[in-house]
Amino acid sequence: MTTYAAPLKDMQFVLNDVLQISKYSNLPGFADASEDVVEAILEEGAKMAANVLHPINQSGDKEGCTRHDDASVTTPKGFKEAYQVYKEGGWQGLSFDPEYGGQGLPYLLAVAVSEMVSAANMAFGMYPGLARGAADAIYAHGTDEQKQKYLPNMIAGEWGGTMNLTEPHCGTDLGLLRTKAVPQGDGAYKISGTKIFISAGEHDLTDNIIHLVIARIEGAPDGVKGISLFIVPKFHVNDDGSLGERNTVSCGSIEEKMGIHANSTCVMNFDDATGYLLGEENKGLKAMFTMMNEARLGVGMQGMAISEVAYQNSAAYAKDRLQGRALVGGPAEPDKPADPIIVHPDVRRMLMDHRAFTEGARAWMYWSALHADLQHKAEDEATRQKAEDYMGLMTPILKAYLTDKGYAHATNAQQVLGGHGYIQEWGMEQFVRDARIAMIYEGANGIQALDLVGRKLMKDGGRAWQSFFSEVDEFISDNQGNEELKQFLDGLSSAKKDVEEATQWMAANAMQNFNNAGAGSVDYLNMWALLCLAHGWAQMAKAAIEKKAAGDSDAFYANKLITGRYFIERLLPDTVSHLAKLKTGADAMMALPAEAF
Amino acid sequence: MTTYAAPLKDMQFVLNDVLQISKYSNLPGFADASEDVVEAILEEGAKMAANVLHPINQSGDKEGCTRHDDASVTTPKGFKEAYQVYKEGGWQGLSFDPEYGGQGLPYLLAVAVSEMVSAANMAFGMYPGLARGAADAIYAHGTDEQKQKYLPNMIAGEWGGTMNLTEPHCGTDLGLLRTKAVPQGDGAYKISGTKIFISAGEHDLTDNIIHLVIARIEGAPDGVKGISLFIVPKFHVNDDGSLGERNTVSCGSIEEKMGIHANSTCVMNFDDATGYLLGEENKGLKAMFTMMNEARLGVGMQGMAISEVAYQNSAAYAKDRLQGRALVGGPAEPDKPADPIIVHPDVRRMLMDHRAFTEGARAWMYWSALHADLQHKAEDEATRQKAEDYMGLMTPILKAYLTDKGYAHATNAQQVLGGHGYIQEWGMEQFVRDARIAMIYEGANGIQALDLVGRKLMKDGGRAWQSFFSEVDEFISDNQGNEELKQFLDGLSSAKKDVEEATQWMAANAMQNFNNAGAGSVDYLNMWALLCLAHGWAQMAKAAIEKKAAGDSDAFYANKLITGRYFIERLLPDTVSHLAKLKTGADAMMALPAEAF
Repeated sequence: MTTYAAPLKDMQFVLNDVLQISKYSNLPGFADASEDVVEAILEEGAKMAANVLHPINQSGDKEGCTRHDDASVTTPKGFKEAYQVYKEGGWQGLSFDPEYGGQGLPYLLAVAVSEMVSAANMAFGMYPGLARGAADAIYAHGTDEQKQKYLPNMIAGEWGGTMNLTEPHCGTDLGLLRTKAVPQGDGAYKISGTKIFISAGEHDLTDNIIHLVIARIEGAPDGVKGISLFIVPKFHVNDDGSLGERNTVSCGSIEEKMGIHANSTCVMNFDDATGYLLGEENKGLKAMFTMMNEARLGVGMQGMAISEVAYQNSAAYAKDRLQGRALVGGPAEPDKPADPIIVHPDVRRMLMDHRAFTEGARAWMYWSALHADLQHKAEDEATRQKAEDYMGLMTPILKAYLTDKGYAHATNAQQVLGGHGYIQEWGMEQFVRDARIAMIYEGANGIQALDLVGRKLMKDGGRAWQSFFSEVDEFISDNQGNEELKQFLDGLSSAKKDVEEATQWMAANAMQNFNNAGAGSVDYLNMWALLCLAHGWAQMAKAAIEKKAAGDSDAFYANKLITGRYFIERLLPDTVSHLAKLKTGADAMMALPAEAF
Repeated sequence: MTTYAAPLKDMQFVLNDVLQISKYSNLPGFADASEDVVEAILEEGAKMAANVLHPINQSGDKEGCTRHDDASVTTPKGFKEAYQVYKEGGWQGLSFDPEYGGQGLPYLLAVAVSEMVSAANMAFGMYPGLARGAADAIYAHGTDEQKQKYLPNMIAGEWGGTMNLTEPHCGTDLGLLRTKAVPQGDGAYKISGTKIFISAGEHDLTDNIIHLVIARIEGAPDGVKGISLFIVPKFHVNDDGSLGERNTVSCGSIEEKMGIHANSTCVMNFDDATGYLLGEENKGLKAMFTMMNEARLGVGMQGMAISEVAYQNSAAYAKDRLQGRALVGGPAEPDKPADPIIVHPDVRRMLMDHRAFTEGARAWMYWSALHADLQHKAEDEATRQKAEDYMGLMTPILKAYLTDKGYAHATNAQQVLGGHGYIQEWGMEQFVRDARIAMIYEGANGIQALDLVGRKLMKDGGRAWQSFFSEVDEFISDNQGNEELKQFLDGLSSAKKDVEEATQWMAANAMQNFNNAGAGSVDYLNMWALLCLAHGWAQMAKAAIEKKAAGDSDAFYANKLITGRYFIERLLPDTVSHLAKLKTGADAMMALPAEAF
């Protein structure tokens, strides 16, 4: 009963007017991404999302995946056909290196398409999403032979891919892993162990699945220093590219979960399965992070995407459902027995909270995706370095904040429907159940916050955040005197001041007791996220003001400024309470003895 | 796989040391509630909760209720037997008037027991909970004959009860209702219509179910002025008390919901069912609110109760699960391959947030329940009036805040388990799904906020909040100089100042544009809730300090002070950002035209 229409106008506004991607035509692939091409691609993506992927979202949730006695897994009705459409549309290779069959378009564009796919059907999107992550890791760390062997089929969508990290006793702490790799002398290894929570671990969408698996080579050091990464294909691949024998990796069972039922989350058993080292021995974690960092952005996107589709359905309900009368100004619909509930301030609050978050998050996410392009494609080293710095800083913030708030806003959207929101048929509760996993997988959100304060904050002497602060300062000073922009500049400036103060507090207090950093990490991450959203909103406001000044009378721009004002007034003030909490440190938090819990 | 042990020590601390219920022995029923009796009752309740109700919580969720072709409904395996234990224990009549077979003990005690029942098995607790609400409405508004006819069996737990309000097109706006009542001349009415979302609407736990149904008598005025309340028994009751024929009310279907699967949420069809007017014609809404107000407290309790059981299970996991090492002070468990995750600040943060909320909420909820006793039982009119004022003010705040935060903390507890939290077998995701409904039913939380600012705030010239403010001031001034209490008094004072400022802003800005009140209503409600929690914590801190001063060396009291300090430092600062948001008013919130959504 739910619907989804990709917010093309909002997407194009960010791409063309805010980020002005036409300015980057010197980068590989960007010249091909003219405004027309972008429009055509997004429109095609929107059609697939609305007509192919979203119609099987609720039915997929209800049916789930089925594991058969031979350990094969079938996806829900319609998924194979939908995947066929996805594959034939060439979506999987949109931004991949043409050398392996990709189209080489900007990663930014692939991110915009992934927004549509995740919003329309998050469980579906995970199949190609995981395959893309695995392909990226092979692309970054594989030998030429490995790349030639696996990438063309993965990029064409013929083969799937997975990430096998978690074991029953070890998730966050990968140093505890027990899966074993025994060298066979011929360059191959025998892999034995059990992995759990493996998304898209086994399915019927592709002819082969390329599992990437971390394991410890016999005799390797304990802990994370002894972790290596392996390619373990479901079917062996012959030298001529044809599929050979079945490898001894199989799905032991499908986890019964809260949501994303249409994705097969598998227990995977490796019984002396043949694997091939990817990258260097004992450097598996580094290679894994290539996959993880991109996956983290993808998961952040899932949070934002679910927020968008949940918003659309709650807004439609709020305009349709008649209950009560407007508090002010008389009945909005005097001919009807009651007014649509969108007249009520608290319903508006939920919808506006939602918009202020989602639209701001889109600007921030796309801005980040552009930096991922710059990181790999910019001509000068300084630009590449700065973009890499930003991606390191932003990745944990995007992952954690967008998934926390995606879930919170899916919950809000459900609330707009009242009792109907709790009924499965209406589809809103699925958004909540699906969104919930994004806060957990690819590193639970608390781990993202720890990554921020423990690794990213002081990396290279804090170069990343110093650079971002300068950019914010520059934006503020460049736009002084723009009266329409004043509220945005003030908000941005005040948020930056709070983040600066928090950063100084962290620097001053974490050295003496690193628990102070851990204790404030989530508040700190949230402050950063609010600053980044304020930055995104200020940029959107500037673009909207310019459009208006240029005579464009489309209400879209005026509405954008109203929603931005709402963001500044109603969401941004949280930096103040986060700062107050952060500055209380770890004392009370850590004081109770463990046995008191 | 989940467990639940009622937090008896915390409960008794609030009852005996904080509220000092022995001081109220002049009230009917309180003299019977000596410390020993209370202890014995709570211990028995705890046994039932742990051994009878909780073991069927997960299985009940999985199995759900089944509607058969004859429209009968069976509850999940074990529910009938568990209900038998509940009934035979006399729990249903604990605080009910002895004239109808109740035990006449304090309502406060029944609330403490309801905490255990809701925590152990929320879906189960709804069956007797709804019956209790219906009995209260009959007790308050029924004729002597009606009371004699229905109450003894309802109080004995022999018969169930329900509330039938919502119809497909009308939930919040009951004025739109279409269910019709046609007088038959003999005092009876024929009721026709369809009701939806009827909790415990049909089941196999009791021999009869007494439905309370709102309907419009033929020819009655439109809107809420024409609503009457009717008693519609599932089986007619003969004059000798025996059961007669089946009435024409039946379950049309069971709703498929996000959670509380073990409670039968029914579509109820009334096909010329025979009903009897309860209270006066066209005054049904008033009578309904007797039931609603108590039900709202019960729902608030569900939020807090789920938070408690979710906490217990996440804390147990955090002490057991080994991942990573403590950031500070070396390994906590050097002999193990890793430390339990409770050493990590962010895991602590989630657990401490949880405790600071749940323990504070318990003090506040029990304090409120004591006022419900005072409202009905105090000897002097002034005390009764003040208690009634408080209950009017507190009911929407308790309902909304405790359910919002109950859900948020169930989500946090799930997060502590990482990936396992998302797997059904571990039971944490059920707490989230179950807790979710409490934010919606008995008046969605936005409606509670509107009730607060629209009805409760300025009722009797603001007498209720003025009285509460005076009590807070008195507490602060009475305890000046108590150095151990200083942080609590400062926090209380600062929260009160913020709520005062918000109240003044509301008073000044709502008259000119009532949308300003609606726009700030949820922030305002949250500020009030934080003030009430601060009040609860200050009282607990005072009691704990006195215990320590009297030489009690139990770590319980020192730990209580630490958790209270954490509340002041980490939860209370939110009043500041709520105030900032509230003061921005309705402008940006209401500015977009409806078609822009």
